[in-house]
Amino acid sequence: MSKSRVEAFTDGIIAILIAILITILVLDLRPPEGVSWSALHQLIEPFLAYVVSFVAIAIYWNNHHHLYQTVKRIDGIVLWANTALLFWLSLLPFATAWVGENLTAMLPELSYAIVSFMCGLTYNLLDRCLIHANGQNSRVAVISQHDHKRWLSLLIYFIGCLLTLVWPPAGLVASIVVSILWFIPNRRVEQEFR
Amino acid sequence: MSKSRVEAFTDGIIAILIAILITILVLDLRPPEGVSWSALHQLIEPFLAYVVSFVAIAIYWNNHHHLYQTVKRIDGIVLWANTALLFWLSLLPFATAWVGENLTAMLPELSYAIVSFMCGLTYNLLDRCLIHANGQNSRVAVISQHDHKRWLSLLIYFIGCLLTLVWPPAGLVASIVVSILWFIPNRRVEQEFR
Amino acid sequence: MSKSRVEAFTDGIIAILIAILITILVLDLRPPEGVSWSALHQLIEPFLAYVVSFVAIAIYWNNHHHLYQTVKRIDGIVLWANTALLFWLSLLPFATAWVGENLTAMLPELSYAIVSFMCGLTYNLLDRCLIHANGQNSRVAVISQHDHKRWLSLLIYFIGCLLTLVWPPAGLVASIVVSILWFIPNRRVEQEFR
Amino acid sequence: MSKSRVEAFTDGIIAILIAILITILVLDLRPPEGVSWSALHQLIEPFLAYVVSFVAIAIYWNNHHHLYQTVKRIDGIVLWANTALLFWLSLLPFATAWVGENLTAMLPELSYAIVSFMCGLTYNLLDRCLIHANGQNSRVAVISQHDHKRWLSLLIYFIGCLLTLVWPPAGLVASIVVSILWFIPNRRVEQEFR
Repeated sequence: MSKSRVEAFTDGIIAILIAILITILVLDLRPPEGVSWSALHQLIEPFLAYVVSFVAIAIYWNNHHHLYQTVKRIDGIVLWANTALLFWLSLLPFATAWVGENLTAMLPELSYAIVSFMCGLTYNLLDRCLIHANGQNSRVAVISQHDHKRWLSLLIYFIGCLLTLVWPPAGLVASIVVSILWFIPNRRVEQEFR
Repeated sequence: MSKSRVEAFTDGIIAILIAILITILVLDLRPPEGVSWSALHQLIEPFLAYVVSFVAIAIYWNNHHHLYQTVKRIDGIVLWANTALLFWLSLLPFATAWVGENLTAMLPELSYAIVSFMCGLTYNLLDRCLIHANGQNSRVAVISQHDHKRWLSLLIYFIGCLLTLVWPPAGLVASIVVSILWFIPNRRVEQEFR
Repeated sequence: MSKSRVEAFTDGIIAILIAILITILVLDLRPPEGVSWSALHQLIEPFLAYVVSFVAIAIYWNNHHHLYQTVKRIDGIVLWANTALLFWLSLLPFATAWVGENLTAMLPELSYAIVSFMCGLTYNLLDRCLIHANGQNSRVAVISQHDHKRWLSLLIYFIGCLLTLVWPPAGLVASIVVSILWFIPNRRVEQEFR
Repeated sequence: MSKSRVEAFTDGIIAILIAILITILVLDLRPPEGVSWSALHQLIEPFLAYVVSFVAIAIYWNNHHHLYQTVKRIDGIVLWANTALLFWLSLLPFATAWVGENLTAMLPELSYAIVSFMCGLTYNLLDRCLIHANGQNSRVAVISQHDHKRWLSLLIYFIGCLLTLVWPPAGLVASIVVSILWFIPNRRVEQEFR
């Protein structure tokens, strides 16, 4: 595959991811029934869940974009790893809508934490597949070598999963903690490419 | 049409296909009413149908991408064959939502099997049109010549249609069998282009 | 604007148009409540309206694509003409959903006919703006000069509007007649560019 | 990042913005229950809000496109400013749906005005970030220097916010006034690039 082709394809994937996820997230944010402050008040919890998921997806967007910028080759395994990431990200709006109506219930929060964890896991999987396709000396491999934030994120999500069993809000809280961790995009990639 | 133009156009088509189908599939996966395990239990069947359709679409995505990579020319007939494929794929979310609520009912399963069969048929039709536009000696023609998986898939879908009349779940099962068959992308195309 | 930039932009516009319209069209096609033939029977009319609108949009897609292929320059007026076309096309799913539930009612059919007419009118307007931006000797101008199908379509839509006042189904029928007229894409453009 | 990469990315962002917003806006415009004129009459207010928001988004589309055309470099801060703009634009369909059902209620109109103001503010923020990334002597900086319409728009939105407290319709009216102000795209950018 030519480089321009890979670029067009991967930019397309990123665009698809974001378009789908934000469309569905926004669709779940329905206007309230009345026009009073109390009607608006009922929207606070769904809105909070919306903001947390929006930020999480924006971080995937920016980092996914950074990841693919360092890529020269993709193969069939990369396509499948990307599809797996897309699958788990596609469940995020569902988990967000459920948790947004039940911020303190165990099952919705656990679902949210598991989906978050699986998104992180498949993202790391995609990273491994890209290194496999591009070689151990490729830029994507060198950059990933020193990137410990990904494994730390997975650990936080995993702890979040366990904590929801005793303190339900841990699901959303774990996502917020990871978001703070990732808020600054990967400086190393940026320096390499500017 | 210049090659870069064809590439941009076909990548755009693939992106559209996926964006539309996954958006609609995910939208049909609504969060449950309660927060209990029994509420989550009701989601098992729709979720199963979602996974089967997601995998089927992912296979079309990866193979459609492989198909168009070998293409140098497109004409009006290709555009219409592509539109026909898009039409039948666009009915997949509808069939998925219906079958997801009625896994053992004949009519939803038959609808799902017919839509799956027509998707396979129009995909093969698109393949024929691409060969017609690019010539019998083009890469797309040479690769398709030895590709018997497509016709086997059509046969499986057809048997699935017939079986739903006596054993309804055959509709989804046929799609699962075809997915297993296609899970590994076409190695021949990949080898040719790496 | 560089040519490649215009190409990327216009392909993007086409992709957006189709993605939006088909997503919404498909979303309006909900699975029936039961699993009986009579439940499926209720879907015949919405499905008929879906097919008519899908074909109409596919024709705009293919012709819009043909139109922009002949274009070298776009300006602010073209962007606004394109936005006007997008506005009227965006009302097509709304009109389709309404007419699909009321095939023989005057007001839904009239709405459908008016929206169809305005889509045709803004498409012709876009064509004029593209000629204005590219000059009277440009390819887009030469090709449009001999293209009488556009004006004939407008006339058919207009007659359709009037006829719905005495025979409501005329709205959908006018769209079907125009679709048959346009089914074969503009051979002149295709010859020029192959 | 190479120029072609920046172009593809920014065109993608614009495409995403529009695809999401128009999809959601159109989805909120449901067909009426009956087929009488009174049924259509109930749609006037939602339709009015739809038109105002559609025009506002079309203006962002055209100007956002103009803005990015002058850009040679983007960095992590630009990505985040763009995400912030996307966040506030994503709330516009929500505010439109609410205000469309309650044209004369204070809270929906105030929400609409605040969302409009935040969209304008984050757009200006994005502009600042692009100048920061491209330098004070870059084209984007020179063009922005003399562009007072942005600050005037912000002022109008801010006045709109305050006015809704005493005259609710001021929210939509402020958006209409700004739309009239922006209807003509930035001639300076167009001249520079034709």
